[in-house]
Amino acid sequence: GRAMAAWSRGLRGVLLDINGVLYDSGGDGGGTPIAGSAEAVRRIKASGLKLRFCTNETQATREKLVKKLQGLGFDISVAEVTAPAPAACRILKERGLRPHLLVHNDLVPEFAELDKTNPNCVVIGDAAENFTYANLNEAFRVLIGMEKPVLISLGRGRYYKETDGLKLDVGAYMKALEYACDVEAEVVGKPAKPFFESALAEMGVPAQQAVMIGDDIVNDVGGAQQCGMRAVQVRTGKYR
Amino acid sequence: GRAMAAWSRGLRGVLLDINGVLYDSGGDGGGTPIAGSAEAVRRIKASGLKLRFCTNETQATREKLVKKLQGLGFDISVAEVTAPAPAACRILKERGLRPHLLVHNDLVPEFAELDKTNPNCVVIGDAAENFTYANLNEAFRVLIGMEKPVLISLGRGRYYKETDGLKLDVGAYMKALEYACDVEAEVVGKPAKPFFESALAEMGVPAQQAVMIGDDIVNDVGGAQQCGMRAVQVRTGKYR
Repeated sequence: GRAMAAWSRGLRGVLLDINGVLYDSGGDGGGTPIAGSAEAVRRIKASGLKLRFCTNETQATREKLVKKLQGLGFDISVAEVTAPAPAACRILKERGLRPHLLVHNDLVPEFAELDKTNPNCVVIGDAAENFTYANLNEAFRVLIGMEKPVLISLGRGRYYKETDGLKLDVGAYMKALEYACDVEAEVVGKPAKPFFESALAEMGVPAQQAVMIGDDIVNDVGGAQQCGMRAVQVRTGKYR
Repeated sequence: GRAMAAWSRGLRGVLLDINGVLYDSGGDGGGTPIAGSAEAVRRIKASGLKLRFCTNETQATREKLVKKLQGLGFDISVAEVTAPAPAACRILKERGLRPHLLVHNDLVPEFAELDKTNPNCVVIGDAAENFTYANLNEAFRVLIGMEKPVLISLGRGRYYKETDGLKLDVGAYMKALEYACDVEAEVVGKPAKPFFESALAEMGVPAQQAVMIGDDIVNDVGGAQQCGMRAVQVRTGKYR
C-alpha cells in the first residue's frame, strides 16, 4: 500500500534477527523454522537489498549456527552474521582483558585465542545448562575478588522461546551478578549501539537507509531506533 | 568507656543475627562457631537484657537451625527465633496465595499447611543446590504465566560466607526473576521494616530501646536503623 511504499523509501539494507524470527531453537533437530522465513530471506536477497543477520545468539559459534540454519533451508553464510562473541573478543584484545568464561560449551572456541590465566574480567553469555549453582558461585567469586569487577555480558535478553518452552536469557543472570557485586555489566550485542553500528558498517549501509527486523521490542526495535534505523517487530518467537 | 555507656543508655533488648555472627555455615558439621559468640549470648542473657535472634536463614526450618546451634554450644530455643519463612506463611495465608516454592529442601516443611496446587505466586528463598537451571526456568514460567506476577523473596541478601567460600544469596536470584518478568519482589525478612517490627513485638521492646547486631551493612544495620533501632556491624562473617 501507499503507507508501506512511503515507509520503505530509500531503504537499502535489512538487518535480520535470527532466533524467534528465522526459527525457534531447541529440540532434537536444533530447532524449527518459522513458516515463510526461508522464503523471506530469499526474497530480500533477490530484491537487491543488502542483508545482514544480526543476532544475540551465544549458544554456538557462528560456524555452528550457520551450518544448522543451512540445514534448515536458509540461504546464509558465516560472513553475513554479526554476533556478540566475536565483538567481545575484539574488545577483550584491545583492553588486555583475560576472561573467566561463563558461556555455553559450544561458544568456547570463539575465545580460543585469548589468554584465560589469572582472569581480570568475567564474560557471561547464554550458558544454558552451564548456568549451574556451582558455576554462578565461581563467576561471582572471580568478580568479587577483583579490586574493580569487570563484567561483560553477551546481550541482556530477558528470556526466549525454545521448542519446549520459555527459558531465562543471559540478562537475568547478568542482573544476578550485577546485584551481588554492585557493578554494572558492559553489554556487547543488541541493544548496544556499537553492535548495530558494526553490523551496519559491515553491510555498508547508513542507519537511515536500513531496517531492523526482530521479535524483541527492547533488543531489536528499541536498539535499532536509538541508532537512527527503522525497525519492525515481528509477532513470532516469544511474542505473547 | 563513657561513649559506650552513653550509647547503651536505655537499652533493654538485643536482636542478634545468626549467620556470620554466631557461626559460619557450611561444611560437614553444618558450620563453625565464631570465637566468643556462644559466650556473648550467655552474657547478654545473664545481663537481664531481652534477647531475640533475628535471621534471614532459609536453608532450614527453625527447628533444624536451632538444633544445629545447640549442638555448637549456643543457648537458643525455637521460640527465640524470628525467621522469614514463618513470616511469609502468615502473609500467604492472609492473602489466599498458593505458592510455587523455589527454596531449600529443608525449608519445605515450613510451608506444609499451605495449598500449593495451581500456584498464584512464587516464593524464593536461598535454595542453594536447588538453584538449578531447570528450577529457575520453571519458577520463571510460573511467574510469566500469571496476569500479574507475584514474587515473594525470603530476604534480599547479595552473598554470604560459608566455610568453603562465598556464595550468592537469594537476592541475586530474586533480581534475575525480577528482571526477566519485569516485576518487583516483595521482600520478607531483613531489611524489611515489618520483619524487624515483628521481632521487636515478640521481644516486647520498643525500637528506641533495642539494638541490632549483625554483619550485613544493608540487611542488619540499614534495616534496623530505618526502624529507629540502634545497630552494630560486627566484622566477622563475610566482612571484607
